[in-house]
Amino acid sequence: MWQSLLGQLISGDVKALARSISFVEAEQPGYKDFMEALPLNGTPKIIGITGPPGAGKSTLTDRLIGELVNAGNKVAVLCVDPSSPFNLGALLGDRIRMSQWYTHPSVFIRSLATRGAMGGLHPKIIEISDLLKAAAYDYIIVETVGVGQSEIEIAGLADVTVVVLVPEAGDEIQTMKAGLMEIADIFVVNKSDRPDASAFVKNLRSMLAPAFSNRLRELPIIATVAQEGKGTGELVTAIEQILKDPIANEKKSWLLTEKLYQLIQKERMQNIDKAVIKKEIEKAATNEGFNLYRLLLPYRVS
Amino acid sequence: MWQSLLGQLISGDVKALARSISFVEAEQPGYKDFMEALPLNGTPKIIGITGPPGAGKSTLTDRLIGELVNAGNKVAVLCVDPSSPFNLGALLGDRIRMSQWYTHPSVFIRSLATRGAMGGLHPKIIEISDLLKAAAYDYIIVETVGVGQSEIEIAGLADVTVVVLVPEAGDEIQTMKAGLMEIADIFVVNKSDRPDASAFVKNLRSMLAPAFSNRLRELPIIATVAQEGKGTGELVTAIEQILKDPIANEKKSWLLTEKLYQLIQKERMQNIDKAVIKKEIEKAATNEGFNLYRLLLPYRVS
Repeated sequence: MWQSLLGQLISGDVKALARSISFVEAEQPGYKDFMEALPLNGTPKIIGITGPPGAGKSTLTDRLIGELVNAGNKVAVLCVDPSSPFNLGALLGDRIRMSQWYTHPSVFIRSLATRGAMGGLHPKIIEISDLLKAAAYDYIIVETVGVGQSEIEIAGLADVTVVVLVPEAGDEIQTMKAGLMEIADIFVVNKSDRPDASAFVKNLRSMLAPAFSNRLRELPIIATVAQEGKGTGELVTAIEQILKDPIANEKKSWLLTEKLYQLIQKERMQNIDKAVIKKEIEKAATNEGFNLYRLLLPYRVS
Repeated sequence: MWQSLLGQLISGDVKALARSISFVEAEQPGYKDFMEALPLNGTPKIIGITGPPGAGKSTLTDRLIGELVNAGNKVAVLCVDPSSPFNLGALLGDRIRMSQWYTHPSVFIRSLATRGAMGGLHPKIIEISDLLKAAAYDYIIVETVGVGQSEIEIAGLADVTVVVLVPEAGDEIQTMKAGLMEIADIFVVNKSDRPDASAFVKNLRSMLAPAFSNRLRELPIIATVAQEGKGTGELVTAIEQILKDPIANEKKSWLLTEKLYQLIQKERMQNIDKAVIKKEIEKAATNEGFNLYRLLLPYRVS
């Protein structure tokens, strides 16, 4: 019964949390009732970390976990990995960077593979962050490579979105995906001990200048050397600053609207089986005068 | 009332056909009843013409119309154009190539813009070809640039799919999209008066050889110079040959299954308004303990 699982989840049992995620991911019987019953009065803050591959997102996340845990917080990390097998080696490397935290009692880390052609974060990312809320985490860090749909989703999910770049992006920055520019609440220039770093920060600042006029506040640009922990304290301060004074987020209601629409669609289509439709089509197609809209007739609502 | 429109459509009135297409495209009240009532006992043959831009598809189509009309047939042509404004000039040029047919009593030509991110042929392509069936056309030619989803759809829609290439494709052919290879019933090498044409045909034939082992018949490769009408008679013969002896088409039932599934989904979701959902979300999100699955409750089916 999911009721006892729910009790354990709320009590903060890590194994129950892992089991809850699997239960919801697999859509086992009762998972919707389980989701409905979740008490979501906790107010964990969701931090989105995104940027190109190799920017040092995982090392930065590793440092962020440290800063937050040392301040007495419970921290959950969701690493959203592209499903492509080509990235597997790199990702394993990333995960190793965080390995010191895997057994820490205040830290929960879960890797999620993106699925589906559209490249969103994960089909159950909203459910999973709600499970973490119910389990009373103080911070949820969602880390992902900024690709396609995932950027828009991370902006909708996170309370603060951090875009990580490296000085090498110098030339690329001119053609930097507009998506990344739009979603950022904070820019981090990591590996800023490299010689061209300060020129890069200056460039980035002047590039972002036109965007400021439309914004209620200036976009912080923070130089870090995540490997050595330089600048990560400043990053935490900037994150806290934004969390204290949130700007109403249109993207957030967009994401939830899409999600609820999909859930309703799934409800309404749950007894429609494509394999059955295909058989129906193939049977009908052998008749002369085959008419698709006559097959629709029994399904018509009005 | 659509009943009188239907009568005119069946009688072969061209204006009624154009009005019927607009009626169904715009989903005006009663269009589903109209589609349901269509008598589809006619057996027009659908010829799909696809290939890269600049291969001469429109000139070839122009010649095909000629061959078919001269043999006493009523021919409809659907030109599916990518919506991108970048191609507009080229497409207008294409359309001019067919201009001699626009006023011919046995020929009906309609341009359709693809819509939607997935790049299929046209959201109402199946409906429109059914309208042409009801209007007793003997042949329907669907011409489109082979991009993305449209390839799969053209293979599902057409009784015979012609892929048009030019000798310049020489180097490209090695990396030719697997999609185009899979859907072809006939290859046309157009502009075959160019010096490298015969080498290209030979290359193509050896490239296709491994594919033959999985096929019930050899893929015809026809060299044409559409501009001069060379090879177009041979193409018509090859098309007729395939139409006489059709291979059961898995792609056809796939396309119709997807279509019926979409139609059912549309029926089931027709009273669900995203703007209303968004307001509901925004109102609920201001409450502490906001829970998405509780909003789903009134929509739940079981």
